[in-house]
Amino acid sequence: MRDNKPLRSEMGWSSRDKITVRGHDLTTELLGKIDLGGMAWLEITGRFPTPAEAEVFNALLITLVEHGMTPQAISSRLISVCAPEAMQAAVAAGLLGVGSVFAGGSEQTARLLQTALAGTEARADLQALATDIVEDHVRRKVPVPGIGHPVHKPIDPRTPVLFAIAEKNGFRGRHVALLEAICATAERKLNRSLPINATGAIGAVLSELGFPWRICRGVAIIGRAVGLVGHVAEEMRNPLAYEIYERVEHEVMVNATTERP
Amino acid sequence: MRDNKPLRSEMGWSSRDKITVRGHDLTTELLGKIDLGGMAWLEITGRFPTPAEAEVFNALLITLVEHGMTPQAISSRLISVCAPEAMQAAVAAGLLGVGSVFAGGSEQTARLLQTALAGTEARADLQALATDIVEDHVRRKVPVPGIGHPVHKPIDPRTPVLFAIAEKNGFRGRHVALLEAICATAERKLNRSLPINATGAIGAVLSELGFPWRICRGVAIIGRAVGLVGHVAEEMRNPLAYEIYERVEHEVMVNATTERP
Amino acid sequence: MRDNKPLRSEMGWSSRDKITVRGHDLTTELLGKIDLGGMAWLEITGRFPTPAEAEVFNALLITLVEHGMTPQAISSRLISVCAPEAMQAAVAAGLLGVGSVFAGGSEQTARLLQTALAGTEARADLQALATDIVEDHVRRKVPVPGIGHPVHKPIDPRTPVLFAIAEKNGFRGRHVALLEAICATAERKLNRSLPINATGAIGAVLSELGFPWRICRGVAIIGRAVGLVGHVAEEMRNPLAYEIYERVEHEVMVNATTERP
Amino acid sequence: MRDNKPLRSEMGWSSRDKITVRGHDLTTELLGKIDLGGMAWLEITGRFPTPAEAEVFNALLITLVEHGMTPQAISSRLISVCAPEAMQAAVAAGLLGVGSVFAGGSEQTARLLQTALAGTEARADLQALATDIVEDHVRRKVPVPGIGHPVHKPIDPRTPVLFAIAEKNGFRGRHVALLEAICATAERKLNRSLPINATGAIGAVLSELGFPWRICRGVAIIGRAVGLVGHVAEEMRNPLAYEIYERVEHEVMVNATTERP
Repeated sequence: MRDNKPLRSEMGWSSRDKITVRGHDLTTELLGKIDLGGMAWLEITGRFPTPAEAEVFNALLITLVEHGMTPQAISSRLISVCAPEAMQAAVAAGLLGVGSVFAGGSEQTARLLQTALAGTEARADLQALATDIVEDHVRRKVPVPGIGHPVHKPIDPRTPVLFAIAEKNGFRGRHVALLEAICATAERKLNRSLPINATGAIGAVLSELGFPWRICRGVAIIGRAVGLVGHVAEEMRNPLAYEIYERVEHEVMVNATTERP
Repeated sequence: MRDNKPLRSEMGWSSRDKITVRGHDLTTELLGKIDLGGMAWLEITGRFPTPAEAEVFNALLITLVEHGMTPQAISSRLISVCAPEAMQAAVAAGLLGVGSVFAGGSEQTARLLQTALAGTEARADLQALATDIVEDHVRRKVPVPGIGHPVHKPIDPRTPVLFAIAEKNGFRGRHVALLEAICATAERKLNRSLPINATGAIGAVLSELGFPWRICRGVAIIGRAVGLVGHVAEEMRNPLAYEIYERVEHEVMVNATTERP
Repeated sequence: MRDNKPLRSEMGWSSRDKITVRGHDLTTELLGKIDLGGMAWLEITGRFPTPAEAEVFNALLITLVEHGMTPQAISSRLISVCAPEAMQAAVAAGLLGVGSVFAGGSEQTARLLQTALAGTEARADLQALATDIVEDHVRRKVPVPGIGHPVHKPIDPRTPVLFAIAEKNGFRGRHVALLEAICATAERKLNRSLPINATGAIGAVLSELGFPWRICRGVAIIGRAVGLVGHVAEEMRNPLAYEIYERVEHEVMVNATTERP
Repeated sequence: MRDNKPLRSEMGWSSRDKITVRGHDLTTELLGKIDLGGMAWLEITGRFPTPAEAEVFNALLITLVEHGMTPQAISSRLISVCAPEAMQAAVAAGLLGVGSVFAGGSEQTARLLQTALAGTEARADLQALATDIVEDHVRRKVPVPGIGHPVHKPIDPRTPVLFAIAEKNGFRGRHVALLEAICATAERKLNRSLPINATGAIGAVLSELGFPWRICRGVAIIGRAVGLVGHVAEEMRNPLAYEIYERVEHEVMVNATTERP
């Protein structure tokens, strides 16, 4: 006989007349008393956010919701055309793109900053850390996470706003300062514009809020789920995915059949 | 040459120094000024919610976040064990279960209520509509969407709270009244407890808020995305999916190899 | 204490020195003795295919593998760009589009044919059944599944080949004949070209092979999984998804910013 | 105006009377002439397999189809319960688990072997390479991919059969020999049973067949897609996912409500 380990979870359970979520009675303690951003905080951390935490966390989430016609949004819309009866499949198809390239930046920036600052004292020399980090990345010929943007130059307009909201609420600390030092050092060393981008700023501020880097991608997933539902809803009113598909199929067919000898 | 139709979207776009989301400047009009629930409303409807709408909509969303160890939550946790490097895959695996059985109830209830009330006058005879609906379902031997619950009896504790929040904000109208009439009629006719369940209540209140029934599943998807990120985060701290897998695999193997002649 | 029902499965299990799949020893009875098409048959039906069944089933599967730059293929390629480290996410993103519109035709055709022929005698009047089916669809203003194609006219070139392979192997029976009668009746009644399309032919031949209609979508899923892996592999060698994304994003941005008053 | 790059693909396209797949006419050159394993080879490599290649490739694919009640299979079955109308969602939910832990072994082994042998001469000293590889992994305290198994000891019964099929067809070359040297070296150095496991054997033989390591996960995805369709089909006939869910939910609820002070 197998020796079973007990299954325990603190997420939620229910009985005949009561639903408990994260230790709180859903109907008397949560409904009407917390917004969706606060609920996301409660789900992930197990406690209510302070008003300051809620304001900062909502700002980060909102930055992640809508980035226009991304590959993820196009995927969701294409799958919505193929399986209109299963909206969850369309949203999932786009969400699967919250990977290393488009949305992994927060995770990677948080990992870099949290690893660098782990175990250091409050008065650690951030400039020395930044120099080490930039030189290490230059030597390994890999980009430094969190800085640089193909469109938004010389600054990403979201970054100063997010840092200002963090500062106003007491969350502009060492992780933000280290990222700023990394940015300045990299720009000087590589002699080009490498602004702190929005995902980098989000990774830094999530680190200030105490989120372990492994969980940061989850914040991007929540934001994007909201945005992808928005795109699928627009696709229902204003279809464009079928036109995208037909253009691509047509061009590939024409190129394939006219260029052959 | 193919005659391309122009691609137009109102979701969002960006230029070098400005990000536009649903017609608003992200950094000056949205960040710090709207919470995630309000942002979801803006994404889906294209306009800001009123404070009353935001309160009701957040309550609906929060009800959908956390339902304990559902099949969706177990799926997300199992896939997180298989591919810990791809959190989006784990969340998507659970989200794919937001289908007809567990979360489609809001959509089906909204469809029923919106179809029944479409084109009727404000003073339509709701009791007559309810009787027709119940008799039609009894004749077709299919359950009426939005009523009945395996655990929560004689009432689903979420329903009166959601209706009270709707009422306080001016959204307890004909869709809610029709669902209440359906519930009373079905209980009388079938002589058993068939409370308005939470998904039914959500479908009715979303109808009051003006959401077309085809979009209601999207609200469930947003709520569950938040909850599934919570479960994957707990699985990282407190793994239990591997134990579930091993129990199942062990039992199937023992049953298969001992019961054969 | 809960009264557990035992968990039993016939799919497979393993012990220290033996892997059992569908009741067969993997290493001595399957490896080197069956191809992937036969293995798919064994997984779904629980027994080996005859050579005739294997030939027909492989032909159906192969027809489903590659349909060029479909919305599913584009989705897989877009997600592969976003998360190149998670190929399974890219393939899944496309597979999610095997829904009612593009690949559900086999399922719907099989359902129609199996339902119509259930309980009828071998000498049932297929023409009368076909007339009823066509008239019923015309009255309900819904298309008859399995017939009509936007490109392949006046015939879908795959259909006669699939039917010939089925006939050669003894599987051109009543389901095929009924679909042919439906096609002829609909073309006469509606006075336009409505050839049996490939998904219709597949649904009919799967019915001949004894597959319940509920499982037919699974055959499409297997075929498309192979094709989508092919597309993701080509995307690695010959990237085009990023170009598709940039064109769409650019056009949406230009249209949005130039057309506003 | 944007300067568009042309979109070209060699996968497939169709005209009114012809479907071209990988440069071949589907109806005259493929249907009835190739099985699903061969078609998978054609999709990925762009050419037909030789009979020897087809035999080896089919054996690898078949090994990957069915591994019993894995986390992936359980996920697919759970999602099938939630969304029975969307079989593709259920299969995708399991496929998402073809990640680094359960099925990434082939990819990692192929990468290790291909990287080690890249640029070496035919008579390279494999024992020296193996010693370097094992010592490097021991020093970094990470497991060597492709060797060791929790259940199958002292050998994985699939490995000698796969290697024998490879040898018979002329594909037991240097990649297999290097993996064998790694296995022997690691067992000697770490003084415990570390057999070449099936995913390791598959990675080595795929390398012999000329598959770049980045594509190896695709082979696992194809095999698992077949197996997961099998599980969903069994779940329809013999439901067990709901029982798994109810047991887990019940136990979590009991543990949560009885252990609190």
